Amino acid sequence: MSRFTHHGGDLAAARVAYPDAASPWIDLSTGINPRPYPLPPISPEAWAALPDAGAERALEAAAAGAYGARPGSVVVAPGTGALIAGLARLHGAGRVGVLGQTYGDHARAWRSAGAAVDVVADVPDLAGRDVAVVVNPNNPDGRLVPPDALAALAGRVGLMVVDEAFADVVPPAWSLAPSPPPNAVVLRSFGKFFGLAGLRLGFAVAAAPWADRLRDALGPWPVGGPALAIGTAALGDAAWAAATRARLAGDAARLDALLRSHGALPCGGTDLFRLVEVGDAAGWFDGLANAGILTRPFAQQPGRLRFGIPADEIAWRRLDDALGRTVPDRTAGPPRA
Amino acid sequence: MSRFTHHGGDLAAARVAYPDAASPWIDLSTGINPRPYPLPPISPEAWAALPDAGAERALEAAAAGAYGARPGSVVVAPGTGALIAGLARLHGAGRVGVLGQTYGDHARAWRSAGAAVDVVADVPDLAGRDVAVVVNPNNPDGRLVPPDALAALAGRVGLMVVDEAFADVVPPAWSLAPSPPPNAVVLRSFGKFFGLAGLRLGFAVAAAPWADRLRDALGPWPVGGPALAIGTAALGDAAWAAATRARLAGDAARLDALLRSHGALPCGGTDLFRLVEVGDAAGWFDGLANAGILTRPFAQQPGRLRFGIPADEIAWRRLDDALGRTVPDRTAGPPRA
Repeated sequence: MSRFTHHGGDLAAARVAYPDAASPWIDLSTGINPRPYPLPPISPEAWAALPDAGAERALEAAAAGAYGARPGSVVVAPGTGALIAGLARLHGAGRVGVLGQTYGDHARAWRSAGAAVDVVADVPDLAGRDVAVVVNPNNPDGRLVPPDALAALAGRVGLMVVDEAFADVVPPAWSLAPSPPPNAVVLRSFGKFFGLAGLRLGFAVAAAPWADRLRDALGPWPVGGPALAIGTAALGDAAWAAATRARLAGDAARLDALLRSHGALPCGGTDLFRLVEVGDAAGWFDGLANAGILTRPFAQQPGRLRFGIPADEIAWRRLDDALGRTVPDRTAGPPRA
Repeated sequence: MSRFTHHGGDLAAARVAYPDAASPWIDLSTGINPRPYPLPPISPEAWAALPDAGAERALEAAAAGAYGARPGSVVVAPGTGALIAGLARLHGAGRVGVLGQTYGDHARAWRSAGAAVDVVADVPDLAGRDVAVVVNPNNPDGRLVPPDALAALAGRVGLMVVDEAFADVVPPAWSLAPSPPPNAVVLRSFGKFFGLAGLRLGFAVAAAPWADRLRDALGPWPVGGPALAIGTAALGDAAWAAATRARLAGDAARLDALLRSHGALPCGGTDLFRLVEVGDAAGWFDGLANAGILTRPFAQQPGRLRFGIPADEIAWRRLDDALGRTVPDRTAGPPRA
């Protein structure tokens, strides 16, 4: 199981580790919307030519509209992974606090850039550091830090990074993107909510100095023509976003109910994934993997599993069946059930 | 004209600067093959899912095959621009020599990272520096530095960057990709030769320490599913590459002949672009732009223009006509004609 605690989504590794699993695999190991935004037509020029500056400005404007941000504060990137790595590299060594447990790439990137990283449990523990990192809402438990607490924190650290990768499914009032403090960088992910993670598209929202430094670090033409066209269409489609938020909210409630009916204890998440306490997470992971369902375990939280949203009724049925057949010992239940 | 001396390819700026130009615009301002590799089918999963590690390994293997490199030495990136910026950021301040005049983003990236950059005229002037940058073949004049001279240079600098963005159209023996010195990073561009610059795909080829540092700096999933699929197909298609090299060689000779017939003096380039001495480059640029043809001027070389390869007979005809009508004073000719 340990090879699956680093990142979700590695079906290739799952196929190797569980060669006799039921197929096709159902990937519930990520927080990616399983029903993607429908692709608009992509012109041959979008593939062939260097992206022109106008197309990049149009994407920035669409992102600014969707996130309530100023267009000039938006930085376009080939995924937030590039921004997480780039920020750590730009800042370099320092005392970094990460509010955890959370998405592991923040701590990895800062350590790799030479920083001393502590993963801390509470917001006040972040004060006084060179850099504070908060994933909001948090992955995997969905914890939300109020914007005024973050604004106060910004005044007590050198740089504040707020990763809003899953903020599309919380009310806009929770986001710092409309007015980031001058020493804050807000990260927004495109691929998760829009179900197009293969596109590699993400954004930073920041005041001018950090926005300029990040643009500079990414180099010219950071994303290609197809991503510019698809991103501009998707981020401008408020009706699709509203319908998708409503659907995901319903699916998240349904998933909690299903998992609870099999003895798991829901303990948070967002409308794009649910975290549950199951006791023997390794046993659950293994049983589900043998049934061709990949979930997300956590090395630091051995009693918990994270489940993404099933795509369709076939996936819901297979998950229900697999849970019924494979949960190791249902009478034991989760520790706090 | 000055707004067009930074990068080629900005048709949006050309439309603004020359609103009454003939249309559609013909973009000869880049070195991008105007007849792109035909796109293979792209699966819905390539757009939707996080790229899996197997697909990235397959692309690395295809790139290694095309470039004669070891698979483990290939680093996949969203364009060489990200690698140029990333290398400068990873290394940081130092004494950097760039063999010039050449593609301006190298000097820009190193200066932005705090380095002291000299653009020098000859390879021996690079010795003894912390970093040496050589574009090979050079853009825009096509100058080639022999591999043994580069291997010798590597022994006399800290880090050597060899940008082989246009090496697809020179014999493979000129490339350092098959066996880069341990302190060298070789850059290869996908979009130029394959005519898919909008895809944003490029590679570094380097020994383990630099390869690992670059992978780390780019973050996970540096390129998306569509780029992995298209790149793997294109780099594995040796027949298309051979036919394309032959066609481009013929087109390059035809372009030199055409430009010479209008009084320009060919002075180098590669089979993806030609550099000519014209005397009054600003006048030529302007006349051609009014005819809807964008070329590439150079701030440091005010007598020269660079022309990309026309895509089809319509483009060849329009170029011939425009040169006939708009060359400012053909009797004056180029200074050295």
